[in-house]
Amino acid sequence: MRNIKLTIACDGTNYSGWQVQPERVTIQGLLQKAVREMTGEENNVVGSGRTDAGVHVLAQVAAFKTKTDILPEGFLKGINRTLPKDIRVLGVEEVGPDFHPIRDAKKKHYRYVVSEEGGEHPLFLNRKWAVGRGLNLEVMREAAGCLVGEHDFSSFRASDGEDRGRVREIFEVRVNQLDCFGLWPGNGTRVPPIASGVCAKDVVIDIIGNGFLKNMVRNIVGTLVEVGLGKITPGEFRDILDSRDRKMAGVCAPAHGLYLHSVIY
Amino acid sequence: MRNIKLTIACDGTNYSGWQVQPERVTIQGLLQKAVREMTGEENNVVGSGRTDAGVHVLAQVAAFKTKTDILPEGFLKGINRTLPKDIRVLGVEEVGPDFHPIRDAKKKHYRYVVSEEGGEHPLFLNRKWAVGRGLNLEVMREAAGCLVGEHDFSSFRASDGEDRGRVREIFEVRVNQLDCFGLWPGNGTRVPPIASGVCAKDVVIDIIGNGFLKNMVRNIVGTLVEVGLGKITPGEFRDILDSRDRKMAGVCAPAHGLYLHSVIY
Repeated sequence: MRNIKLTIACDGTNYSGWQVQPERVTIQGLLQKAVREMTGEENNVVGSGRTDAGVHVLAQVAAFKTKTDILPEGFLKGINRTLPKDIRVLGVEEVGPDFHPIRDAKKKHYRYVVSEEGGEHPLFLNRKWAVGRGLNLEVMREAAGCLVGEHDFSSFRASDGEDRGRVREIFEVRVNQLDCFGLWPGNGTRVPPIASGVCAKDVVIDIIGNGFLKNMVRNIVGTLVEVGLGKITPGEFRDILDSRDRKMAGVCAPAHGLYLHSVIY
Repeated sequence: MRNIKLTIACDGTNYSGWQVQPERVTIQGLLQKAVREMTGEENNVVGSGRTDAGVHVLAQVAAFKTKTDILPEGFLKGINRTLPKDIRVLGVEEVGPDFHPIRDAKKKHYRYVVSEEGGEHPLFLNRKWAVGRGLNLEVMREAAGCLVGEHDFSSFRASDGEDRGRVREIFEVRVNQLDCFGLWPGNGTRVPPIASGVCAKDVVIDIIGNGFLKNMVRNIVGTLVEVGLGKITPGEFRDILDSRDRKMAGVCAPAHGLYLHSVIY
């Protein structure tokens, strides 16, 4: 059996997340259907992890086995021909028989985008959490510092989460403000801000860890935003982490601001 | 009669452009309907200019007259309540009776986004022209230089255009490459490129002028891209401009890469 690795991007808006579920349209489900149409084989497209409904994907990694001799380029074209336009396979490669998307993942990088504007910009619908108030990034960074390292993240698990071990390691948390000049910012020649509503200041939160409990990134972000709004101090944020009590943490940030950025092997 | 100025943003994908047309859904049509529902008045929402079907809008300026005493904040909330989410009024202000969105516009700034990647990224569907080949920006800049100043732009008019005068003044053309690191680039802390398909290199073309013929920006961009691909030399580009012959120019770039960036008064 050949082992085929896929790199996938997706606008999560219209999907019930990654994992196959009865009577739901899921990313995994559509990929398995596309592979089946090409190979005639029943198959299991194993992803590096699940994403929730509405969460976006910049570079999910998955793999499946096949007995066919279809070339990677053939899979790239053929699978994309079957998929809807809001899911794309970005790359296909044949890997050794031992490669496993879950077991071999060393780091996962999630990105969360918060807009300080209220209301969603029409060109970024379902792309950011529109908080509608300014955030104090300094205190958010100070609070986020305590997340780095190996911790029991029970405080930030999903209330219905069934994760067994709740210890994960966070390698890095970055909180950055992005001055958004025009639609595509940062091209050296700075374009002056246009109508105030467009010149959104986005706060981009990057979290890199060895794995995440269900809803963990969204619960961390929701609580960090409360820090940025001055409702919780960095000291209290650390107390929440230490308490291992889900009821202590803040709101769960909405799915549509979250991106699975990349998986590092 | 009070004179109310609107600043509007729109994802143009689902609309037949700005101007009211029978049996078509247009931006102007939806705005006039929203204003009518609030004021009970027949009204004419005059925009700074028309945009074509599929063209996006970052900050269109428009104005309408009303006898009501509804405050600007009231219009902002009320109009947005009626509009679909892919059209937003970003700002409302009351202006003097003489303000006229067309007559008073000094400059218009259009932006065009070309992706050197082939295929549309699922998170940027209908947002860029995916050319699928690398562009030589140096020769594009060299060619674009001849556009600056007052010229007869007949070579770049729409074949069905009914523009009377064809002389316009271009103040500035910028051709910039945007290294797209992750989804939102340029935040100081450079995130390393992730899966190659995501790290798109976008070419952003900004054109600022006192006015534009129908399809003029798209015809200029289509021809500039042929320069960037090496099919036309900068000298030949100048000859095309000088010829005043529409048949000499290159393809018309697709509407979905074009943005009305701003109108300067």
